[in-house]
This record gives sequence, C-alpha cells and structure tokens, in this order.
Amino acid sequence: MFNFSDKISALKPSAIREIFKSLTDPEIIAFAAGNPASESFPIEELSALSRELFESQAVKALQYGMTEGYTPLREAISERLYKKFGIGRDFDRTLIVTGGQQGIELSCKIFCNEGDVVLCENPSFIGALNAFRSLGAKPVGVPLEQDGMNLDALTDILDKTENVKMIYMIPTFHNPMGITTSFEKRKAIYQIARERNIVIFEDNPYGELRFEGKDILTIKSIDDAGIVIYCSSFSKILSAGMRVGYVNAHEEIIQKMTVAKQVEDVHTNLFFQMLCYKFMTECDFDGQIAKIRALYLRKCRLMLDTLDKVMPPEIHFTRPQGGLFVWCTLPPAIDLSTFVAEALKRKVAVVPGGTFNCDTDQPSSAFRLNFSNPSDEQIVRGVEILGELVREYLEK
Amino acid sequence: MFNFSDKISALKPSAIREIFKSLTDPEIIAFAAGNPASESFPIEELSALSRELFESQAVKALQYGMTEGYTPLREAISERLYKKFGIGRDFDRTLIVTGGQQGIELSCKIFCNEGDVVLCENPSFIGALNAFRSLGAKPVGVPLEQDGMNLDALTDILDKTENVKMIYMIPTFHNPMGITTSFEKRKAIYQIARERNIVIFEDNPYGELRFEGKDILTIKSIDDAGIVIYCSSFSKILSAGMRVGYVNAHEEIIQKMTVAKQVEDVHTNLFFQMLCYKFMTECDFDGQIAKIRALYLRKCRLMLDTLDKVMPPEIHFTRPQGGLFVWCTLPPAIDLSTFVAEALKRKVAVVPGGTFNCDTDQPSSAFRLNFSNPSDEQIVRGVEILGELVREYLEK
Repeated sequence: MFNFSDKISALKPSAIREIFKSLTDPEIIAFAAGNPASESFPIEELSALSRELFESQAVKALQYGMTEGYTPLREAISERLYKKFGIGRDFDRTLIVTGGQQGIELSCKIFCNEGDVVLCENPSFIGALNAFRSLGAKPVGVPLEQDGMNLDALTDILDKTENVKMIYMIPTFHNPMGITTSFEKRKAIYQIARERNIVIFEDNPYGELRFEGKDILTIKSIDDAGIVIYCSSFSKILSAGMRVGYVNAHEEIIQKMTVAKQVEDVHTNLFFQMLCYKFMTECDFDGQIAKIRALYLRKCRLMLDTLDKVMPPEIHFTRPQGGLFVWCTLPPAIDLSTFVAEALKRKVAVVPGGTFNCDTDQPSSAFRLNFSNPSDEQIVRGVEILGELVREYLEK
Repeated sequence: MFNFSDKISALKPSAIREIFKSLTDPEIIAFAAGNPASESFPIEELSALSRELFESQAVKALQYGMTEGYTPLREAISERLYKKFGIGRDFDRTLIVTGGQQGIELSCKIFCNEGDVVLCENPSFIGALNAFRSLGAKPVGVPLEQDGMNLDALTDILDKTENVKMIYMIPTFHNPMGITTSFEKRKAIYQIARERNIVIFEDNPYGELRFEGKDILTIKSIDDAGIVIYCSSFSKILSAGMRVGYVNAHEEIIQKMTVAKQVEDVHTNLFFQMLCYKFMTECDFDGQIAKIRALYLRKCRLMLDTLDKVMPPEIHFTRPQGGLFVWCTLPPAIDLSTFVAEALKRKVAVVPGGTFNCDTDQPSSAFRLNFSNPSDEQIVRGVEILGELVREYLEK
C-alpha cells in the first residue's frame, strides 16, 4: 500500500530480534539471544543511586540535557578509557549515545552516501550490517580467520572496491565468532586504513569482559592519526535495557555525530546517564566487572566442557577468552537450516550463521551459541540436545 | 580532514541547541529554549514508582526489551489515544520511540530517498527540518497563516514539485508560531494528501496542553485511509530528559519504522517506559496534565499581558491557546539579527525566526518566545527589556 524508501524496502527485521520475540516460551533454551546474565545487573546499587538522584538532582535529571551527553559522565569515561585502554589523544572527544548501536548507525550516516561501502569482518554483528543497509550503504565482507581478518583478502577487496568509507570491526571477543584479532593484525589493518584514508570503527562492547588470557591493545590506542572511532557501552556491565553507550573519536567526527544524534533523539536518557556516572564514581566499578568476568568464565567453561563431552570430533567450535558467544561449525554434510529448525522443535534456539553474513545469500554451516544468559542447567541440557541432534544427522 | 557524507556536510547544528548551550549563564532570561517548566515534573510520584520498579521488576526493566516498546505501555497509550483523541482504526498500531524526535526522523527514513521532498509548514520545528536534511531529504515550505497552511500555496507547490513523500505538520499549538490549524483546513489538507497518495506526519507534542478554547479533532482521527502518522510524547507531561515518545500509524508503517528503529537504538530506555506505564495507570495522569495546563495558562497570560503593556502597536504577536510558544513579529524597519544580538547583550535570549524557515536564506522579521520555562519574574522583566529595545529601534 505504501511506497517506502529503497533503503528500507530492502531491509528485513533482524532474525535475532524475531527469534528473541519467540523466546517468550519459557520452555525454550535461549542460546540465540545476546542478553547479558540477569544476575549481572547491580540492582541494589542502582536502586540506591536512583533514590539519591531523585532526592538531590531530580529536576536536572528529568529536564532536557545536552546532545553530547552529561559532562561528568563523558569526563569519567574519557578518564577510564585513557587509564584502562590507552585511548585518548588531544584531538579525541567522547560522545554519549543511546547504546552502542546508535554509535554504529551515526558513524555510517556521517561518512556514507547511498551506495558507499563499509568493509566488515565476515561474519559480523547483524545490528551493524542492518544499520549500514538502512542508510543505503553496502556491507562488503572480508573473511574472518581465528586471529582476525584475512589481510590479503582485505587489500584485494580494497583494490577492487570503490567508495569504501569505513572498516567495521569487532576485534575483541567477536560477535558472532568469539575470536580476538591479534595485535599484529590490528597494527596491519590500521596501517592499511591509514594509507588509504579510510576510517576504522572499533566496536568493543565486550572489551571489559576478558575472563582468560592477556589483554591486547585496542586499535584506538595506536591511533595517532585520529582515524579510529571507538565505541563501547554499559549494556554488558550495568544494564542493557537502559541504552547508554559511548563513542570516542576525533573531535571533528564527534562534532558531526553530535549534529546527527541531535536529530535522532536530542540526547540519551539523562537520568541513566547520571546513574552511570554515579556508579562509576561512587561504587566499585572494577569489582562489578570482575564479578561478571568470573560469572562468564564459569558459564563459558561449562558450555565448552559440555561441547567437548557431547560433540563428535567433526564439530568445531571456538574457545573464546571473553565476551558472550561460542561459534559452532558443522560438517558440510549437515544442512544448517533444517538443523536449526529441528533444534528449535526440541526447544533449543540458536542463530544460524548465514544471518551474520554480509551477503545474505552466502551459505553458512555454523551457528552462534550464547552462554551469558541461559542458566547452568540450560547450558548443559541445551548442548546435550544439540549433541544428540548432531549425532542423529551424522548417522543418517 | 575527513570526507563526510553529503547529507551531513550540509547540516548545521541547531541554533536553538547552540543557544541552549550558552544558557548556562544564570543571568540570562531564557525565552529561547523549549524546555517544559521544571516545576511541572511529578518528582514525588516518579520517585515512588521508581522505588517500586526496582523492588518488583528490576531485572525486566534493566534487561533488553522489544524494539516495539513495552507492551503494557503501548496498550495504555493506544487506549488513551482512542478515548481522548478518537485515534485508532483496526489497522493502526503504536510504537514507542526515543522522544518524538525519533518518530520524525524514522518517518522520513522509511519514506524518503535522498533528494525526495517533505512539505512543511513555513516556519516549522527546526528539529524536524534538520532530521529531514540529515537524511538527504529536502524540506519545502508552505506559508503558514493564522488558521494553518495556505491551501492554494499547498496545492500549487504540490503541482510543481516532484517526489513529495510526506507533509509534516504541527497542527495544534504550532512550534514556533503557537497557532492552531482549523478543523476545516485539517480536513482539506487530509483530502489533498489522500488524493495524491502522500503521507501526513501529524506532530502533536503539545496536544494535551490546551489551556483555553475548545479542542479540535486531530487529523489522525479522521484518517480512514491510514495515511496519517501521529506522533506525541511524554516530554511535556512527565519528563523531557527521559526521552519517551510514541507513534501511532498504519501497521505497515509501524513495521518499517520498527525495523528502522532497531538499527538506531534497539529499543527505548525500558525502565522509563515502565515508569510511564505505571504513572498512566497508577497515578492521576489527567490531574497531572490539568496542573500543567493551569501553570501554562498563567505563564502565557503573564507574557501576553506584559507584551500588551510594553509593546507599541506596530508589534504583532500570536495569542496561543496552548503549547509553549508566542511568535512575535517586528515591523520591517527593524533588522532582526542586530535586534536579537542586542537582546542577548541585555541578557534576554530569543530565537530569530529565520532559524525555522525551510529555506534558511529566506529572511524573517519574527522571533520565538518560550513562556513555559522562565519564572514569572523573568517573563515580566524579559518582555520589558524587549519592549524597551523595540522602542529604541523605532525611535532611531
């Protein structure tokens, strides 16, 4: 009945969000979502801080604020980024966004005309791919290996592709694959981008959630040229539902993103910005993160141990050192779409890998498993069901 | 240093937001902002409801939610829209957005390709004009009269303009002019849009804030064809800083807006969505609105009475029956830009009318005054200063 814009007509609702909607069935074991563990929210602290806010700063928290965000929060974030991640040259600024998702979308909006290209790791975060598509930009995939993008493929695609405006990466605890880009590859990709004058978007929502191994420097920390947009959020640390994230980038970029944000939502919910600030400065922020790391270490190990136990050797899966996801690859003999459908019939929801491909017609033989949200019992039971199903398929 | 997208390169920061930033000087009388009165926020109730939420539904409120919004809130809004405004056919649905601003931006995104046209009342809300520009769409102005758009101009522009995809209107207590479109004109504009298969965006953030005269039916209430997108918010009723608004439109439109919203911010702050729901169903929502109406009636009258007293007859101003703004027109002899600059020197901030023009090069001899946010003393003193200044200019 309506004539929608070209860019939106082509856009499909995210498969994950649609699966998420079907997850209202409490019997379903939800390996499909990307929700943080409900027990990770610091409810007592947030509740107490909220009472204080209503008592002492209610009018300020309920009135319009500045598009850039609540100044004390921006300063606290800048300080933490510098101390923890070596991020922040003289020319860098911090902008508060309505979840990391908005940071991704705004970056594409300020750099891409319709038809322009964003290079992405393939597979990549579906929310980013769809954000690019919703603006008429085209995500083009670079094959992802265990230590990051294939560099030959990256330069090859760059040589052959016109109007590449941005490289979108999740170098640390990748979504969906759970892998981490090595420092060597980070440096190499940065050099390539710098030589070709292309902006890198470093999406780092899980960066604080390393539960094994040693930290690797962020790409932004080596960004002398100011071409890296760094994005993260409080979604996996304090609360996903409050929608508070942040971007750190060159002031010229932040200025344009601010103008673009202004016309999207004026500013991010101010009350929760102030709550985040209070949590960062009045509570044990590092302790909160340590708690989540310990929780996810246990959950991830439980999932990997169960996979080790129930999966035949033909099945490969990643062994993440942080983040929320395990990526499980089936042998080509197994048809992924019937496998995923059959798993859902047996009350286990996983996301089929093709969902995360830049080219949605490209087939996949992998699926994503989330270990942060399901209970321990669900992790064991769900992986056992998947193991049974795999064996049935292989015996066919 | 950077190559920004065409649509964003052209976009200037909103003059109002920039003025708003300079308003940190407490000596300045801020007629320039559009902030609701700070004393209008129901702090006690929100504080109590917030405590209850943390006690009984904290995990739900802090976890990811659905892009469409919190279902009980959507239902409560739909019910109120139906009862109060006659809005809601079988095909209509409600979507929660991050303030009305997001509703405006999403509508343009789903209907407009780059280069497409949105017809707007001229002058119009700067946030809407810039949202259209940020997507590469072009706002084209239709002259606004005391009872709404000039209909001859509207049909004339429609005849001469290609790719008009939407008509953006604030028919009730217009921002910046404070006028209200008559029911006759609402019907006529609806018929014109319907015949030409163009969508109408009915922006109604101030609809509940009538303090004089009789309600006029919304355009959405006569929308048998499903071509009207109705948008409003809680910003002027409960809190502007929380960023909770809503859109009611045909389900096909809502579906596309949901997909577009998903990639902008996943969903609106869930805690405050639940807070709005609790306020609507557990507190005296109509009483809260009645309180604000009484407050703004008093403030508006004070401003109009003072204008009557101090302004020479050459100065014209609108007499709004609701909303937040008075529009004041100077005789052509007075140069607006030096007038506004001189007023700011005397510590009175107003927004020059040209800011609100679709064509920013088009001159204006008017300025906007806000009466909701300044104190009574500021209203009297500020208008007196403007009156003095006008007389000085006329005596030159």
